[in-house]
Amino acid sequence: MNSTSIDSLKDHYRAARAQILEDFLTFLRFPSISSEPEFTPQVLECSEWVVNYLKNLGFKTEVWPTSGHPALFASHLEAGADQPTLLIYNHYDVQPADPLELWITPPFEPSLRHGEIFARGAQDNKGQCFYVLQAIRLLLERDGTLPINIKLIIEGEEETGSAGLSGILNEKAEQLKADVLAIIDVGIPSMEAPAIPLGVRGIVTMDVEVIGSGIDLHSGHHGGIVYNPIHALAEMLALLRDQNGKISIPGFYDQVKPLSKEEKDRLVDLFDEEGYKKSFGALPTGGEKEFPPHERAGSRPTIEINGIFGGYTGAGFKTVIPSKAHAKLSCRLVPDQDPLEIAELVKEHFKKTAPAGIEVKVKVHPGVGMAVRSDINSRGVQAFTKAYEEVFSKPIGYTYEGGSIPIIHQLMAASRSEVVLAGLGLPDDHIHAPNEHFGLERIEKGCLIVARAIEHLSQ
Amino acid sequence: MNSTSIDSLKDHYRAARAQILEDFLTFLRFPSISSEPEFTPQVLECSEWVVNYLKNLGFKTEVWPTSGHPALFASHLEAGADQPTLLIYNHYDVQPADPLELWITPPFEPSLRHGEIFARGAQDNKGQCFYVLQAIRLLLERDGTLPINIKLIIEGEEETGSAGLSGILNEKAEQLKADVLAIIDVGIPSMEAPAIPLGVRGIVTMDVEVIGSGIDLHSGHHGGIVYNPIHALAEMLALLRDQNGKISIPGFYDQVKPLSKEEKDRLVDLFDEEGYKKSFGALPTGGEKEFPPHERAGSRPTIEINGIFGGYTGAGFKTVIPSKAHAKLSCRLVPDQDPLEIAELVKEHFKKTAPAGIEVKVKVHPGVGMAVRSDINSRGVQAFTKAYEEVFSKPIGYTYEGGSIPIIHQLMAASRSEVVLAGLGLPDDHIHAPNEHFGLERIEKGCLIVARAIEHLSQ
Repeated sequence: MNSTSIDSLKDHYRAARAQILEDFLTFLRFPSISSEPEFTPQVLECSEWVVNYLKNLGFKTEVWPTSGHPALFASHLEAGADQPTLLIYNHYDVQPADPLELWITPPFEPSLRHGEIFARGAQDNKGQCFYVLQAIRLLLERDGTLPINIKLIIEGEEETGSAGLSGILNEKAEQLKADVLAIIDVGIPSMEAPAIPLGVRGIVTMDVEVIGSGIDLHSGHHGGIVYNPIHALAEMLALLRDQNGKISIPGFYDQVKPLSKEEKDRLVDLFDEEGYKKSFGALPTGGEKEFPPHERAGSRPTIEINGIFGGYTGAGFKTVIPSKAHAKLSCRLVPDQDPLEIAELVKEHFKKTAPAGIEVKVKVHPGVGMAVRSDINSRGVQAFTKAYEEVFSKPIGYTYEGGSIPIIHQLMAASRSEVVLAGLGLPDDHIHAPNEHFGLERIEKGCLIVARAIEHLSQ
Repeated sequence: MNSTSIDSLKDHYRAARAQILEDFLTFLRFPSISSEPEFTPQVLECSEWVVNYLKNLGFKTEVWPTSGHPALFASHLEAGADQPTLLIYNHYDVQPADPLELWITPPFEPSLRHGEIFARGAQDNKGQCFYVLQAIRLLLERDGTLPINIKLIIEGEEETGSAGLSGILNEKAEQLKADVLAIIDVGIPSMEAPAIPLGVRGIVTMDVEVIGSGIDLHSGHHGGIVYNPIHALAEMLALLRDQNGKISIPGFYDQVKPLSKEEKDRLVDLFDEEGYKKSFGALPTGGEKEFPPHERAGSRPTIEINGIFGGYTGAGFKTVIPSKAHAKLSCRLVPDQDPLEIAELVKEHFKKTAPAGIEVKVKVHPGVGMAVRSDINSRGVQAFTKAYEEVFSKPIGYTYEGGSIPIIHQLMAASRSEVVLAGLGLPDDHIHAPNEHFGLERIEKGCLIVARAIEHLSQ
């Protein structure tokens, strides 16, 4: 019956291929950048398109207003009380697209090359959201019904930290109630080595402002007198880590629960230095030297500088000592680090290391998130494991995902469900970077995996 | 005769005051920003205005094409071979005006408040250039002739390092030949304590590019694996100086000729921590701790970070590890440091301190300059000393200027002249910063000083 089911799903998918591609491109054309206020109308247009798509599938839909962009809720609950309820999470917002000049084709004019669609959001998360919708469409088209109860929550602020959805989870807890929560927003190490992540890292992000003087100063007249705030910032940032890549902030590692031997042994180590260099033009020389790259990537915490600016940054030269310098920092966290406690430690670091004459302000962004781990023996992980193995025709492994989805921890609590993480992102999809892309083969495979996992969850 | 001369000059100045103000405002309205290619037409318009002004004064003028913006040469050589020749240097180009939003009134719409004209270039160097023109105009108006031979060289690329003028000095050496070179582009500590600088610092500026990967990377997936180039940049910048503010680059101080006891004793120390804090909102906590601020300001070398950028710098947050990070550095130099040798030492520093996996490129900008010192007993310094003392009615002191005028050293060589530095800039004129300003009282005083110095140079 499994091979029959998967074959018939494939037939239905392939018959609708042209329409599927057309719908996907429409979804990608919305510049639904959640972090830039000028894109708010486009974020809303995108949400309306998704709602209509769900309505046409036969879902009951609700648009939940939030403090920011709306969260979309949809449900199809005709399988009855005997069947479990699966809550699937996706997001329809995307990252900013700059630097625009590095895109080969414009970020919101999707372009197909070598079987991959290039566009902002092609993978993260519109591609993965889209194959979820296709999985449901195929099951409904083939069977006229769904084997389990399904709820969808598709938010519009994942890329800015999910503050809006986070704020309404308590009041929506009853509607969100489910047995299994599936987060379809992660990846696999490669198409040859599919794996399910058993966790994501937590996150906290901060803006650091360093103030040296009330006004910009001439570096000839004031150089050697004032403390240049860029210099102070560089010095304080340099003190964040020691020469072995270990984070030097006192207490930073206190709450870290190291992996057990069993957990380490189960980890798929596919890290390939040559391949990494080829894909990214980079060497694995960052992070804590005492851990191998595949452990550092998902099961160790980090502090990264995501942006820095100060002084004159245009063409030519300007001999200025700026009044201020700025950095944007993020920490990726692992169980059981608490994001706000870590932020306090970072603030402390800047307070303690600021040179005389230099003022530092640290602002924590909303959208902090705890790290999450899944139980390998849970229903969700087992159903998706079977689905992956059918679609890829091979046994799969397990990893820890390095990214963060701040809302997961709160969604688990609100829906009172166990969590499974799934997705078909690949390390070189260029998400959050120019030329993001996602393959049509993965749209099809993702669709089949979700459809089969839904069937496996049926009792 | 001195008081008669100065009084009659004052009378002539005051009678023409309205026209002088109008002409000055016209000069300031040209956005002659030499470093930004889009302003090239306005730089040229400004140069044409200056040439016409000189022609109307009765000067012979020449526009010298260069590799960049033209240099303007003008001469009035009717005093005869018995009289010395004074070559006066100014520049008609200005610094960029950003950040524009911090200007109270627009940078190229001059505005008069409390006796000060606010505009980009109001002081540096249009204000000081303008009173030179007025001094000559007054002498000619009053006497019908000039007591000495005068040559003017007014260039259009001082703010970008004078590459154009520098490139033609050899071929123009004969025309530039003079006895005294006066650089009217410096300042005094305060109106209460006028002083002549006996030197300017040299300069070399550089762009540093730090490359970590071929593309921007997601900080979740790659954080802990790659070496973040912003982090590498911060670490390398932090190693430029030690905890005492001393520059750590091996060999950096090797060519520094310390001030003699006599030179130190002659230095005016007007540094006032309270006043500095009030004017600039900053404390004098930068630079080498073993020297007092007034020595660090002009007689010690520095390395400053004038700009830094990398990663996401917009609103909100983006969890990116950028492929590159950038810094703009400048070194202010003292005798006998060689700018290109210092640049090599800085390059060496980055080569030696770059972490594994990180590539660094250092590009030296054109427009390097050696430091310059004047002889206190020279004709030029003596003539200007007398002129300052007459105009300010008090004895003056001597300082070392912290800024750099890269072309001076080469102009001295080409013109085979001794140099004197003069000017009425004040420390809080906000040059190279928003809300640059210069006072009408200083236009008048500067005009009188230059006119009287010209008379004192007459034999």
